[in-house]
Amino acid sequence: MTATPAYDPQNIFARILRGELPAHKVYEDDKALAFLDIMPRCPGHTLVIPKAPARNILDITPEDLAYVATIAKKVAIAGMKAFAADGITIQQFNEEAGGQVVFHLHVHVIPRHSGVPMKPPASEMEKPDVLAAHAERLRAALAG
Amino acid sequence: MTATPAYDPQNIFARILRGELPAHKVYEDDKALAFLDIMPRCPGHTLVIPKAPARNILDITPEDLAYVATIAKKVAIAGMKAFAADGITIQQFNEEAGGQVVFHLHVHVIPRHSGVPMKPPASEMEKPDVLAAHAERLRAALAG
Repeated sequence: MTATPAYDPQNIFARILRGELPAHKVYEDDKALAFLDIMPRCPGHTLVIPKAPARNILDITPEDLAYVATIAKKVAIAGMKAFAADGITIQQFNEEAGGQVVFHLHVHVIPRHSGVPMKPPASEMEKPDVLAAHAERLRAALAG
Repeated sequence: MTATPAYDPQNIFARILRGELPAHKVYEDDKALAFLDIMPRCPGHTLVIPKAPARNILDITPEDLAYVATIAKKVAIAGMKAFAADGITIQQFNEEAGGQVVFHLHVHVIPRHSGVPMKPPASEMEKPDVLAAHAERLRAALAG
């Protein structure tokens, strides 16, 4: 087995965490951040990430992973409410062969509706005003 | 939002937990069980489940979810080693619209190799002797 490559602090999610790039944030605390995927596979597609540097599931600390999972649960419940969803698809990709594109651990939380397939990954950039409105709905559901 | 339906104790993973159905187990402790998917999307495709009843991410306790996540990490690392994998795909489906078929929370941990797509879900039953050999490789990697 090859060792996991080192964490690259210039990945775009690290830059979002440092405030160098904008994001449509839906949740934030001292250990985790949740924000919208700008190429959502369904409306409300959210990414939950740890604030601590971690490339993926192979190198994240068990404590940080456990915490991110609990935030993904909160976002899943909020996504059901905010989008009157029928279900939630969770995905988490590790290394390029596993489907990973950005190398800071992230959990995809995707609200689903019966009979509506997901768009292919990274297929279409959503309009900023739509993302802003969706983020607001999720923030309200998380606060409610 | 509709309330999450009640947990059905006759689902097949509950029956595996009660020993009423067999499984190719790769890990077990007092709170979680990991066993092979009998219709693997890639060799080594493992399911990690809590022992406590939980339909999915919407009703599982945060503590049980956090624990299952840490076991999924152990299985992911073991899968990389046991199958000389290049990556790991994690999936977790909630409610039928989210892709869920068996209604006891389970995390799919799927070893991946570069350029090898996953088979479609539930497309082909693997031979029992192949599953037994794969479970043994994963148990050895988890113990090593």
